[in-house]
Amino acid sequence: MADQRAPHTGTDVTGLTVAVLGGTGDQGRGLARRFAAAGHPVIIGSRSAERAAAAADGLGGPGIRGMANEDAARAADVVIVAVPYEGHRELLVSLAEALAGKIVIDCVNPITFDPRGCYPLVVPEGSAAEQAAVVLPDSVVVGAFHHVSAVLLLDPEVAAVDLDVLVLGDDRPATDLVAALAARIPGVRGVYAGRLRNCQQVEAFTANLVSINRRYKAHAGLRITDV
Amino acid sequence: MADQRAPHTGTDVTGLTVAVLGGTGDQGRGLARRFAAAGHPVIIGSRSAERAAAAADGLGGPGIRGMANEDAARAADVVIVAVPYEGHRELLVSLAEALAGKIVIDCVNPITFDPRGCYPLVVPEGSAAEQAAVVLPDSVVVGAFHHVSAVLLLDPEVAAVDLDVLVLGDDRPATDLVAALAARIPGVRGVYAGRLRNCQQVEAFTANLVSINRRYKAHAGLRITDV
Repeated sequence: MADQRAPHTGTDVTGLTVAVLGGTGDQGRGLARRFAAAGHPVIIGSRSAERAAAAADGLGGPGIRGMANEDAARAADVVIVAVPYEGHRELLVSLAEALAGKIVIDCVNPITFDPRGCYPLVVPEGSAAEQAAVVLPDSVVVGAFHHVSAVLLLDPEVAAVDLDVLVLGDDRPATDLVAALAARIPGVRGVYAGRLRNCQQVEAFTANLVSINRRYKAHAGLRITDV
Repeated sequence: MADQRAPHTGTDVTGLTVAVLGGTGDQGRGLARRFAAAGHPVIIGSRSAERAAAAADGLGGPGIRGMANEDAARAADVVIVAVPYEGHRELLVSLAEALAGKIVIDCVNPITFDPRGCYPLVVPEGSAAEQAAVVLPDSVVVGAFHHVSAVLLLDPEVAAVDLDVLVLGDDRPATDLVAALAARIPGVRGVYAGRLRNCQQVEAFTANLVSINRRYKAHAGLRITDV
């Protein structure tokens, strides 16, 4: 079996403040909970500062605060975008100035459902991450955390999460940092998986994981072998 | 760690004759070698019967024959299509009648390279597997074996291959059969991963594996966790 630790990147992410925009959803709350548990100051962002504060209180950990999305973006070192795809472009356009100069981690999966199951949406820019890069020309966009099960992240019985986080981007220091950040979640490795132009299939693969989960009654994740 | 055996499908594939079209390439020869080692009669198909016979002789195993693609298609129970994407549509159009009524396993990856690395091609039908389904209306098309490293398949030192084969298709008995066939390769599990309309991202993900291989000097594969 592959070594469970992240491939070494040399990037120290200790103490970085992490904001999660759209942090009141399951995925956002799950990531917030795990990064707070790893010792990071965490800010949950939401359209409403009140809902953000309530979500932060609900998670109950030390060091989790709630703020309006723009304040969360300004206050953080690294910003995770965990909003539904429907509101993705509009939110990022509104935050372009607040996010300038920051590393923005996009974990949005443009997928939808019909009676035959889950399938990917077509994104004009190629992928949600590439859409973010177009809308945020002054930020460094990295794709990651697409396949992490919110159920597992939020389950206090799950001490370690059994999967690799695929990290995509065109800036080596930024992808190294995000890979190191992923490895702060027990059990998780951050694995570089290509440039941003190869993010579409990673986002869309979430539809396959949904199919796998339905067939096998699982919370499926990916591991990369031989790394 | 996930159980190394295939999720049980109840399908007995013992003794099925497997043809590999485009079987003189590395991927085709690797699959031919492994299925022959598992006791299946194997037919390598090629445009040229002579080249097919030479490739079969080169593998040296018992029970591997070479034939022209059309004869290989007619003689087999299950047919794997392992040709380059460039010749994929044309070959299948020419074999539509020979492949009627058969399970056709498409493992073609529409990817290409430029100086920045590997990236997926746009396929008009969505994916190579969906292209096959359009061209072969009287066959049952299943997508599988996209991510298997030819290097590992051909290496006599590699007893077991550490990956899951993702199996995609719209026909349950056919995907069960192909999952069971995948599990004939030691170390491999066949995992159902969705309908054919979710095959594009699985094919395109090969570009990510190429990126991973370059970064980590690996022969990367996928494992699905919690299955």
